[in-house]
Amino acid sequence: MSERMLSDTGLDLLFRAARTHKGWQDRAVSDVLLQAVYDLAKWAPTSANCQPMRVVFAKSQAAKERLRPALMQGNVDKTMAAPVCAIVAYDLEFHEKLPELFSQADARSWFAGKPDAIQENAFRNGSLQGGYFIMAARALGLDVGPMSGFDKAKVNQAFFPEGTWQVNFLCNLGYGDPDQLPPRDKRLDFDQACDIQ
Amino acid sequence: MSERMLSDTGLDLLFRAARTHKGWQDRAVSDVLLQAVYDLAKWAPTSANCQPMRVVFAKSQAAKERLRPALMQGNVDKTMAAPVCAIVAYDLEFHEKLPELFSQADARSWFAGKPDAIQENAFRNGSLQGGYFIMAARALGLDVGPMSGFDKAKVNQAFFPEGTWQVNFLCNLGYGDPDQLPPRDKRLDFDQACDIQ
Repeated sequence: MSERMLSDTGLDLLFRAARTHKGWQDRAVSDVLLQAVYDLAKWAPTSANCQPMRVVFAKSQAAKERLRPALMQGNVDKTMAAPVCAIVAYDLEFHEKLPELFSQADARSWFAGKPDAIQENAFRNGSLQGGYFIMAARALGLDVGPMSGFDKAKVNQAFFPEGTWQVNFLCNLGYGDPDQLPPRDKRLDFDQACDIQ
Repeated sequence: MSERMLSDTGLDLLFRAARTHKGWQDRAVSDVLLQAVYDLAKWAPTSANCQPMRVVFAKSQAAKERLRPALMQGNVDKTMAAPVCAIVAYDLEFHEKLPELFSQADARSWFAGKPDAIQENAFRNGSLQGGYFIMAARALGLDVGPMSGFDKAKVNQAFFPEGTWQVNFLCNLGYGDPDQLPPRDKRLDFDQACDIQ
């Protein structure tokens, strides 16, 4: 298709063979590796280069315990067992950094004082960056276990009491135990989800 | 870091050297390649495997002309010049497919009749999938040019008149012209966007 594309091994690592993990090997994840994940994900595109994603990596036992009361029952054990749980959030004051981040226009003025535009843009682009973050983790050999099953208000209160960062989703990170994987659920075919016009 | 990770070439292709393109080479993108992009992106995780992303690839001149009146002025020329513009949308009836897609619980009941939960989940997971889609396109050697600068109501009216699919963002696809790239804007450092606790 092209002279530059990922190898089959790379496509398997990111997409085809990668699975959402709930069981974790007893193998630590270094701070350097977490930084490397972010330092890849940060390059991928956002609208007006706004980069609203913020991440708190809950790695210590103390941080995990602050997270525990917010987790849906079915997500407690796997999150406590994971080496790291990334709290993927977005910053409702992202636009204050636009003068520094976007050189082509006064993009701050598109958002300042417009809470609906801020919320929509932060949620869209913060989620896009969440997708990049998951791909970057896999690109560096980590397995991921993203989750929506938690109490957002409790996470925000425990980790973002100032109210400008809002949790989006949680994502366990580590090295998955393949023996604990369930059968894979099906995906929508191209014709169910796409159309070429 | 791990015995399994992308090569430097792969990391450059997806993240470090990849750029958002506005100028396009005169080089077509085949339907088979568009299908291959989706068939990679579909494997990446969504909440309860809900897969709300839908994509219409505007490739013909007729489809491009239907899109044109919705584009912000600064996005017209580059979109008309791109081989394909992907209209990345989400399906507000995604939950009707959950009985087929998620085997572990009756996830349809979490959403049926709950429009706020539907909207939030479709937007979050449709955007995550948008991030996977952009990474999949790059993994297969395509360049991308995602855009938020367009009139959503006009796109929805022109392409999704039934009202159940909602446009999320647009993404030009093709082979970029590196000679038309501006200098790269900066990214937030790890310490500006992340914390390890």
